Amino acid sequence: MAKELKNLTKRSENYSKWYNELVVKADLAEQAEVRGCMTIKPYGYSIWEKIQRELDSKFKETGIQNAYFPLLIPKSFFGKEADHVEGFAKECAVVTHYRLKVDEETHQIVVDPAAKLEEEYIIRPTSETIIWNTYRNWIHSYRDLPILCNQWCNVMRWEMRTRLFLRTSEFLWQEGHTAHATREEAEDRAKMMLKVYANFVQDFMAIPVIQGVKSETERFAGALNTYTIEAMMQDGKALQSGTSHFLGQNFGKAFDVQFVDKDNQMQYAWATSFGASTRLMGALVMVHSDDNGLVLPPKLAPIQVAIVPIYKSNEDLDAIRQKLEPILKGLKQLDISVKFDDDDKRRPGFKFADYELKGIPVRLAMGTRDLENNTIEIMRRDTLEKETISLDGTCEHIQQLLQDIQKNIYTKALTYRDAHIYECNDYEEFKKKVVDGGFYLCPWDGTSETEAQIKQETLATIRCIPFGVSQDNLGLDMVSGKPAKFRAIIARAY
Amino acid sequence: MAKELKNLTKRSENYSKWYNELVVKADLAEQAEVRGCMTIKPYGYSIWEKIQRELDSKFKETGIQNAYFPLLIPKSFFGKEADHVEGFAKECAVVTHYRLKVDEETHQIVVDPAAKLEEEYIIRPTSETIIWNTYRNWIHSYRDLPILCNQWCNVMRWEMRTRLFLRTSEFLWQEGHTAHATREEAEDRAKMMLKVYANFVQDFMAIPVIQGVKSETERFAGALNTYTIEAMMQDGKALQSGTSHFLGQNFGKAFDVQFVDKDNQMQYAWATSFGASTRLMGALVMVHSDDNGLVLPPKLAPIQVAIVPIYKSNEDLDAIRQKLEPILKGLKQLDISVKFDDDDKRRPGFKFADYELKGIPVRLAMGTRDLENNTIEIMRRDTLEKETISLDGTCEHIQQLLQDIQKNIYTKALTYRDAHIYECNDYEEFKKKVVDGGFYLCPWDGTSETEAQIKQETLATIRCIPFGVSQDNLGLDMVSGKPAKFRAIIARAY
Repeated sequence: MAKELKNLTKRSENYSKWYNELVVKADLAEQAEVRGCMTIKPYGYSIWEKIQRELDSKFKETGIQNAYFPLLIPKSFFGKEADHVEGFAKECAVVTHYRLKVDEETHQIVVDPAAKLEEEYIIRPTSETIIWNTYRNWIHSYRDLPILCNQWCNVMRWEMRTRLFLRTSEFLWQEGHTAHATREEAEDRAKMMLKVYANFVQDFMAIPVIQGVKSETERFAGALNTYTIEAMMQDGKALQSGTSHFLGQNFGKAFDVQFVDKDNQMQYAWATSFGASTRLMGALVMVHSDDNGLVLPPKLAPIQVAIVPIYKSNEDLDAIRQKLEPILKGLKQLDISVKFDDDDKRRPGFKFADYELKGIPVRLAMGTRDLENNTIEIMRRDTLEKETISLDGTCEHIQQLLQDIQKNIYTKALTYRDAHIYECNDYEEFKKKVVDGGFYLCPWDGTSETEAQIKQETLATIRCIPFGVSQDNLGLDMVSGKPAKFRAIIARAY
Repeated sequence: MAKELKNLTKRSENYSKWYNELVVKADLAEQAEVRGCMTIKPYGYSIWEKIQRELDSKFKETGIQNAYFPLLIPKSFFGKEADHVEGFAKECAVVTHYRLKVDEETHQIVVDPAAKLEEEYIIRPTSETIIWNTYRNWIHSYRDLPILCNQWCNVMRWEMRTRLFLRTSEFLWQEGHTAHATREEAEDRAKMMLKVYANFVQDFMAIPVIQGVKSETERFAGALNTYTIEAMMQDGKALQSGTSHFLGQNFGKAFDVQFVDKDNQMQYAWATSFGASTRLMGALVMVHSDDNGLVLPPKLAPIQVAIVPIYKSNEDLDAIRQKLEPILKGLKQLDISVKFDDDDKRRPGFKFADYELKGIPVRLAMGTRDLENNTIEIMRRDTLEKETISLDGTCEHIQQLLQDIQKNIYTKALTYRDAHIYECNDYEEFKKKVVDGGFYLCPWDGTSETEAQIKQETLATIRCIPFGVSQDNLGLDMVSGKPAKFRAIIARAY
C-alpha cells in the first residue's frame, strides 16, 4: 500500500488520471465486469451511507417520506410526455424476455424465444413516468395533496463513456417526487429542495456551491425550470451536484392526474422532482483530496480518528492500550468514531500511509516514549501537520480539531473557487482562458443558438444563471453582440 | 376510511383475502402496473426502514460492511455453478438491447434492432455469481480474509403467481456474502447469521421462530447447507423468514477464487450467503394483525403513540395542546415516537378507526372533561383495552405499556404456535390434519422420494430439521415405513 501510494499520479501532472487512480487505490470503487457499471467497495459505500443518512434526515425534516416504486417501466409510459421521451428513452437497458433455457443441441444457456414479452420494459433511468402513473390513483381531492415521496434506488442510463462515480451506466441516487395543488406550492418546494442540497453539500461535504437556474437547453427533460447547485473541482471544472425541477403540470397532464380543488373544480396536479446521486462521491474526491490521497470532511468520514500504537513487545502494547482506554471511551462519548489499530500484520509506517490515503481526518500515534511522557502524537490529514500534545485534554482537543478541519477544508475550497471565478465580457479572452478551467460570469443573450456556439467552440456550457448575482447593467452578449438577458456562469464541466 | 375498515374481511371467513385487503387498506403496498411488481407506500416503507436499520446495525456488530455490486449479471456467469443455474437462471428478466428509437413510419417508440447486446444481461435474482467473480480480484492471501460484505438492494425473479410482500417479481432485500479461509469459519458464520435473524425476528418483530436446517431438496441452489428460520402464521401455515447458506467451495471453484494460506498453499475460498427480504413485512402482517387491522410491535412501529384531541372550539384545542405539551416532550425524551393529530379535516372517530387499522400501538384521546379532571384516555391496540388515567406519570405509564405490548404480542404468537405444533407418526392422520394448518413433527427417512410424495399428496413440505429437538428414538418414517433418519417439521407454507 505504501508503495501504491507513492505511485499516485500528481494532480499537477494529470488531474484526470490522479482522480481515476485515487478512487481505486483508496478502495472507494472499481470498474465492474459489467459494461459501464461500478462496484462500490465497503470503504466507499460507508461514505455513501453517511451521505444518505444525513440527506435522508434533512428530507424528512421537510415532511418527505420514503417509498419504493418498480425498477421496470413499460415502454409505452415514455411516450406520454413528449420532452421526457427525448431525454430519457434513448440509451437505456431494455428487457425483452423473461426466461432462459438450456439449448438442447449446444447445451449452452440461451434466451428462450418463447418467453418474449408483449411489451418491453425499460430499467428506470428516472421514475417520473411510473410514479405519476401511480399518483393518478392516489390523488382525487386537494385533501390528498401534497404528496411528498422520495426513493433511494438504483437507476440505469446506457452511457458510452464512463468514469467511476462521475458517469456510470448504473448509479445509486435518491429521487424525490412531489405533487401539489398549486403552482406556487410546487415552485416553492423545488426551490426548498435546492436549498436542502446546497446546505448539505456545504455543511457536511464542505463543498461551496453556486445555486442557480439552468438554461432551457440544460433543463431536465420535461421540466419548466431546473434549479442546480454547481461546485468547482480543483481543475476549475464544474460538477453539477444536485438538481431540483419544477415540472409544472406536464406529468399531471401526461398521466391524467386530476383532483377536485377547494372550489370543486377539476385541476391537474403540479409536480416537482429532485435528485442527487453517487456523483457526489466524485465531487467529494475531486474537491478536497491531494497528492497523498483522500481528504475527507470529518462530518462524512466513516472513521474520524485512527490510533496507531508503536510497540516492540506485547507488554508495551498492553501498556499503551491501558493508557489509551480513557481516550477511546472519551471519544466515543463525544460521538467521535475511532479505530484503535493494533493489527500486528501491518507495520506502523504502512498504517500511516494507508490512513493518509484513506483520508482519515485525525491520526494519533503512541510509542513507549509517549507512554513515559504522558503525551501523544497527533496529525491532521488536511494540512499534514503533526504535533505532540499532552494526553490530558486530548479528547476535547480532537473534538475542536475535527471542527477546525471541517471548517478549514471548506474555506480552502471556497478560496480556490472564488479565485477562479472571472467576470468576462470578451469572447476571445474567454476562449483563451476557459481551457485552464474556472467559472466565467458572462453576459448572455438568452438564445440557445449562442449557447450552442459556445459549447461547440469551447466545450464550455452554461452552468446556470446564478442566484444572488446582479442581473442589472448586463451590456452585450459576448458572442452575438446582442443585448444580454442574463449574467450566466459558463464553464467546462464533468 | 372508517367505512373501508368495516369492510375488512374477517380472518375466519377468508384468511388469504383478509391479508390481501389489509395490506392495501393499511397503506402498506399495492400492486404496480408492472407485472408482478409492487409499489411500497410510505407507511409500509417506513416499517421496512425500521427493519432495515435494526438488522443493519446487528450485521455491523458482527463485522459486516455494506457494499454495492451491479444490478446486471452477464448471462454466462450463471453457467459457472451447475446447481445455481438450475435454481436461478430460469425465470428472470433478460436485457437484450440498449436503445430505443422512434420508428420512422409508425412514429411509435420501438426497440432499436441495431442496439442488440453481444451477450445478454440478467437482472440479478441473487448476486453470488457477480460477487464471487469480483472477489477473485480481492482475495490473494489469507490476510485478505475474511471478507464480510452485505448489500441492500432490489432483486428480480419472474414469478408467475404473485402476492404483495410474500411473492413479487421484484423485491427488496439484503444479501450478505462472506469469504473465509477455512471451512469451519464459514460454517460458523452461516450459523451466526441465522442467530442474528432469529434474534431480530423474535426481539423486534415479536415473532417466534423455529431454527433448523433445510432438506437437500429445499436448499439454496449451490449450497451445501441451508439454515432457516420458520414462523407460523395465524392460519397455521409456515413462512420462511430468513435463510443462511453454507456454500462450501462451490463458488470459490466456479469463479476460481484462490488464495495462499498460512502454509503457503493455494486454497479455494469458503463461502456463505444469507438473505432476508420484504417478505418479512408479510410475516409481520400475518402473525399479529386482527380483524380490525394491523397490530404492530412497538419496536417496529413508525408511530408508537398517536394523540387525538377532542374539541369543539379553538380555545379547547389550545388548552388541550398546552396541557399535553409536557407529555409530548416527555415522550420524545424517552425516545418514543408520537404524533399529535390536530388535523381538523378528519373527525376523531375517523382518526380512531384509522389508527386502529394502521396498528399504532398506543392511542390517547383527550377531551374537555379530561382537561378538567387532569386525565387522559389511553387505548392499547393489541387488546383494544381502554382506560382513563391521571395525566401525572403518563409518560412512564406509556413506556411500560409499550414494553408490555411488545411482550404480549410475542407471547400470544408463541402460545398460538406452540398449540399448533403436533407430533405425528401416522400419515393418514397427517393428511387429514395438515389441511387445517399447523407444524407437524414427523419421523422422516431422509429421502427426497418421501419428501416429494408428501408434497404431491398434501401440498406440505419439509420446512426444516429443527435445532434443539431430540433426534433420538425416531422410529419409522410415517410414509415409507423405513427407519427414520430425522425428526422434521412438515407444514404447508407460503
